[in-house]
Amino acid sequence: MRTVDLIQQKRDGHELSTEGIRHLIQGYVSGDIPDYQIAAWLMAVYFQGMSSRETADLTMAMAESGDQIDLSAIHGIKVDKHSTGGVGDTTTLVLAPLVAAAGVPVAKMSGRGLGHTGGTIDKLEAIRGFHVEMTRDQFVQQVNEIGAAVISQSDNITPADKMLYSLRDVTATVESIPLIASSIMSKKIASGADAIVLDVKTGSGAFMKTPEDSIKLAQAMVEIGTRVGRETIAIISSMEQPLGYAIGNALEVKEAILTLAGRGPQDLTELSLTLGSYMLVAGGRADHEEEARRLLEKLLHNGHALEKFKQFVAAQGGDASIIDEVLKEEDGDGSGSLPTAELKAVVQAPQAGCVAAIDAEALGRAAMKLGAGRETKESKIDLSAGIVLRVKTGDRVQSGDVLAELHSNLSQEAVDAVAREVQASIAFTDAVPDSQPLIYAVVSKDGVKRLSEQK
Amino acid sequence: MRTVDLIQQKRDGHELSTEGIRHLIQGYVSGDIPDYQIAAWLMAVYFQGMSSRETADLTMAMAESGDQIDLSAIHGIKVDKHSTGGVGDTTTLVLAPLVAAAGVPVAKMSGRGLGHTGGTIDKLEAIRGFHVEMTRDQFVQQVNEIGAAVISQSDNITPADKMLYSLRDVTATVESIPLIASSIMSKKIASGADAIVLDVKTGSGAFMKTPEDSIKLAQAMVEIGTRVGRETIAIISSMEQPLGYAIGNALEVKEAILTLAGRGPQDLTELSLTLGSYMLVAGGRADHEEEARRLLEKLLHNGHALEKFKQFVAAQGGDASIIDEVLKEEDGDGSGSLPTAELKAVVQAPQAGCVAAIDAEALGRAAMKLGAGRETKESKIDLSAGIVLRVKTGDRVQSGDVLAELHSNLSQEAVDAVAREVQASIAFTDAVPDSQPLIYAVVSKDGVKRLSEQK
Repeated sequence: MRTVDLIQQKRDGHELSTEGIRHLIQGYVSGDIPDYQIAAWLMAVYFQGMSSRETADLTMAMAESGDQIDLSAIHGIKVDKHSTGGVGDTTTLVLAPLVAAAGVPVAKMSGRGLGHTGGTIDKLEAIRGFHVEMTRDQFVQQVNEIGAAVISQSDNITPADKMLYSLRDVTATVESIPLIASSIMSKKIASGADAIVLDVKTGSGAFMKTPEDSIKLAQAMVEIGTRVGRETIAIISSMEQPLGYAIGNALEVKEAILTLAGRGPQDLTELSLTLGSYMLVAGGRADHEEEARRLLEKLLHNGHALEKFKQFVAAQGGDASIIDEVLKEEDGDGSGSLPTAELKAVVQAPQAGCVAAIDAEALGRAAMKLGAGRETKESKIDLSAGIVLRVKTGDRVQSGDVLAELHSNLSQEAVDAVAREVQASIAFTDAVPDSQPLIYAVVSKDGVKRLSEQK
Repeated sequence: MRTVDLIQQKRDGHELSTEGIRHLIQGYVSGDIPDYQIAAWLMAVYFQGMSSRETADLTMAMAESGDQIDLSAIHGIKVDKHSTGGVGDTTTLVLAPLVAAAGVPVAKMSGRGLGHTGGTIDKLEAIRGFHVEMTRDQFVQQVNEIGAAVISQSDNITPADKMLYSLRDVTATVESIPLIASSIMSKKIASGADAIVLDVKTGSGAFMKTPEDSIKLAQAMVEIGTRVGRETIAIISSMEQPLGYAIGNALEVKEAILTLAGRGPQDLTELSLTLGSYMLVAGGRADHEEEARRLLEKLLHNGHALEKFKQFVAAQGGDASIIDEVLKEEDGDGSGSLPTAELKAVVQAPQAGCVAAIDAEALGRAAMKLGAGRETKESKIDLSAGIVLRVKTGDRVQSGDVLAELHSNLSQEAVDAVAREVQASIAFTDAVPDSQPLIYAVVSKDGVKRLSEQK
């Protein structure tokens, strides 16, 4: 099998065989196929696409390129959740204890990564004492005992995906649905998921800017899951503005605690309930989504979800008393125990009007500048830093009203510069803007269910 | 200027700036841009094409990437001829003395290269004593004195083109008209041509299989030439069957000598006269092509072209007496003095009928197997080896008639195997096939002139 012939086949719009795709991926990882041939193939894929069979083959070839985590010692159906990435997305912190409380095992491998804020592990480390140092056996045992555990992703998960992603990044071949879909799904499959619930973000703050493109990506991932025997369902959710109010590590932990106590932002709560419902159905804990949702709502309001979070935090060495302290602080009683920043600044409305748009991407960059995220692998995260919004799209404000609070340990001058960016990222209008749906559609192997009526 | 942005621009169908194209080529040659980025850009060019401005910019960036030969010390307009490559194409050997005899200076840089037969230099080396060892000054002096000289191409001509070509070869990006056109033109421009006459081959034995594709390639090259101030004209000529009868180094030298004596094959003579006419017009030696053609016909028949060939051979150390010996041998008087092979075998017609098609590519491969060409850089050429056809498409034969003579120094067994391939490469029909044109069109800056009536 000659690599150049495989490139030409794809260039000419033909389907590659399973063996052809394996040849490319195994050869690339082993160093037998040079990166310039893979780069040419990636660009050919960009133009010609891949069939769903080819995409599934690519996914499995990448999943099999490194460690494959065996979670069979964990009782029950392991349902993993994945978000395609947005700003201020705190759902993982909410969902892990919430679905664990409902009896679906959460065996989460998470990364730190680059971005506007840290990864799930960074966020949890804002809780004093929390750590992810444990053996694979301890991890399995903790999930079996309390229902949830988080560890660092193995360095050797899907090395083929890491190599391909680095190459795509410098060859203008990132924006290809089969390549994006197989990249995401390969990691989930190698991490041992039996079923996968996807939160595909759409809008100005997301990689996919329109619901239709997001649906296409979701369909590609659902098709992969179906072909490789992992039930997969995808929610298309809005990232036209940040989810919830908080963007930053400790700030999002606080927001997650409030949400688990049934006092969280409406959009974060709603999205967590929706994603959680599909996780419960996939995990066999409910027959249908409405039943699952009722159960989850109960768990938020009867304290069981919050209790599960405490158990989980304590099991990983964290100081679970912080959770109650956060709730007391919110009630004006006590000072909380999460890391706090030296400097707090407010951003005020420059005019009266209705909030027309909140540029999530700009706010994400602003939070990163305040110290909340990593620009390079070497960057150190400031767990206390970030932004708390006070408004959502559609809110009416008076000139001078507080739009956002900035938390930082940088100089006043640096914070002032970020404050100007935050102010510029919020647009106003005289008219009340149309309300935007939070969830656009649900994509499963049965097809696309559009929910454009839903808020 | 970020390379990934340039790749993306091309991927999205935009035109790159002159600076953008220079950045890519200079960066690639200097090693600052890795081959995987160039591979992705080449595949994007494959799909999106290039404007004629971009193609001209690429040509000049490649021409400027290495040595640029200064031929200004040679009197007159330096007209270079280039063929896109066929089987048994002896036109260079005929044209060099022919147009030199008409007063157009021929300062030829030639390569050895890979292929069915050797390059122009290999062929000329079949003449005892002929060599290309001379300084640049001696080269210029010889052209000024006798009108023609051939030397080896500098190793450092268009290194960017060599690098790009090697990369295209392994990334399935060879078949792109702007890339093919700029590759050819960059070498001609770096070699110091003032004007360029192109012989774009078309048909089963050529890279371009249809006249329309060949016209597109010709147009791309003519546009480049026009943009960079080198008058360029292209002939679209047939490579449905080998040109002339001989395929092999010494065998083609003999055929060239016969042609220069006015006794050559009809098609080789006709194509040489056509290409030569345009060279004379471009070189300012004739006002129009008909006048040029009359002059060239005269030079073939009054012995001046042959005389010029003798002068040229002698000037480069060759034994010019061979030329007359070849003519005597042809008249049955003497044995010639070109290298001859030990073994001669004939291929006979397996049936009676009309020759329907002669597969030029298969015959080229057969000649290479007999020893006439190089499969790898290390292969040693057998100057005496090759094939002499006895038929052309449309000829009527009886079963057992000789179709071709094979010349080789290999074993009888090896030659027999090649003989079977040669026999299989000639197809027969009962009906007389339609005669095919030799020259399909002429492409100049004034447009395309189709000559489909012409044979």
